[in-house]
Amino acid sequence: MTVRQKFNGIFQKNNSLLCIGLDPELEKLPRDILSKTNSIFNFNKAIIDATYTLVAAYKPNSAFYEAYGLDGLKQLKLTMLYLQDKYPEIPIILDAKRGDVGNTAKMYARSVFEYWGADAVTINPYLGYDAVEPFLRYENKLTILLLKTSNPDSKQFQDLKVAGEPFYLAMAKKIRKWKDSNIGVFVGSTYPKELGQIRKLFPKAIMLSAGIGAQSASVEAAVKAGVDADGKNIVFNASRSILYASPGKNFAVAAQKEAGRLRDLFNTFR
Amino acid sequence: MTVRQKFNGIFQKNNSLLCIGLDPELEKLPRDILSKTNSIFNFNKAIIDATYTLVAAYKPNSAFYEAYGLDGLKQLKLTMLYLQDKYPEIPIILDAKRGDVGNTAKMYARSVFEYWGADAVTINPYLGYDAVEPFLRYENKLTILLLKTSNPDSKQFQDLKVAGEPFYLAMAKKIRKWKDSNIGVFVGSTYPKELGQIRKLFPKAIMLSAGIGAQSASVEAAVKAGVDADGKNIVFNASRSILYASPGKNFAVAAQKEAGRLRDLFNTFR
Repeated sequence: MTVRQKFNGIFQKNNSLLCIGLDPELEKLPRDILSKTNSIFNFNKAIIDATYTLVAAYKPNSAFYEAYGLDGLKQLKLTMLYLQDKYPEIPIILDAKRGDVGNTAKMYARSVFEYWGADAVTINPYLGYDAVEPFLRYENKLTILLLKTSNPDSKQFQDLKVAGEPFYLAMAKKIRKWKDSNIGVFVGSTYPKELGQIRKLFPKAIMLSAGIGAQSASVEAAVKAGVDADGKNIVFNASRSILYASPGKNFAVAAQKEAGRLRDLFNTFR
Repeated sequence: MTVRQKFNGIFQKNNSLLCIGLDPELEKLPRDILSKTNSIFNFNKAIIDATYTLVAAYKPNSAFYEAYGLDGLKQLKLTMLYLQDKYPEIPIILDAKRGDVGNTAKMYARSVFEYWGADAVTINPYLGYDAVEPFLRYENKLTILLLKTSNPDSKQFQDLKVAGEPFYLAMAKKIRKWKDSNIGVFVGSTYPKELGQIRKLFPKAIMLSAGIGAQSASVEAAVKAGVDADGKNIVFNASRSILYASPGKNFAVAAQKEAGRLRDLFNTFR
């Protein structure tokens, strides 16, 4: 099954544009979860079991596992295996933002797609096509290229003018000429105008956006700008606002409630 | 001890601009190393023990460990611990090329500096200052920003013209205004002209360059363009040409010979 078919299937099944970012922070985990072994995995598992009917994708962010070293990475592996085994219909985006020259890119691609088994990965395209191509070779997987990021300082470099237009747009126009059909694109929800520009350039691409929730982007503007002609093919990530909706024992129920609220809110504007 | 003092000390002690990239590929390891447990660590250890008087730094590239999953990452941990314990005078650059928004960047910084214990890290600055600042907060560590990479396709985006000059140069000029003293910069050895431009903008920064050896850059042009006024403060990475100088049992001796040759060659042009 290609990643495209997987996304088509889940858009149909769950009728949701919500992607939940699995970004565990030990400082924020409920106390009774923290006291047991594999606490991060058990936290993720509870979040997943409470939300799997409400999402279009899960997105573990590699940084939040790497920060806890080998044990953290073991929690990521347990999480990936759990998702692949129990919810194989839900796409997993490994948010890694890798980007390196060819020989090294091959190793990163092997890691994210073969070892971790992700369906999609986020990649920084600044190094050019030969640094992205090793990921694109995995034809059934999705390689999501960062164009315009959600942070305030993204303007410093991404908006520098190239022949009268911002750099991210010049980059997008070049990337559009790459013929690979398994390219996805990332634009921050905090920049709905830019999101709309990029959607026009990539009318059918699967897009990832983030910044809604803890980063407080305007939901209506982002959803309207980001969806394709059928109101689909974009997922909006939320992490903290769902994972830590409640600090107590009822965290999973609270997460489910917030995930449901966001799904319904997104659907209002499709 | 700051990373600056560590580099000063090793430049003095070993009189070398050579950085050895510890980029293990299982397919290329000698057979008798492969047959034992912790083969990657044992390979690295043999390389390190044979070359520690010849280098200015070691640079494990995270991709080559991530490709082998949790076991690969354990080999990286063993390698870091061995270097820190036995050769604490040699700087370790963790080549990770991370780059993500603030909250996530904090977790990557925690990972590279606190968990892995690297002295320096490579970072993609495309996301802007707020994505780099969490690394710069580690005042005694070095954050090396990618400006112009060594690969052929680096021109696609990095050379796009911004107000008449290439993007990487516009980026470099903005980065120069950041006041942090612990910024290092990366320029590929395959682009000696660009290396010289960047050195002029950052006359005292510690620089990392790569592309000599397997990537066959002109050594003379790169060394002359890259050194500071005292003929120092840059390291040139070589990986494959040293690690796999011989496929047989004598790999460490062959690596030592090639490392010595490169050190002497670099020193000829300083």
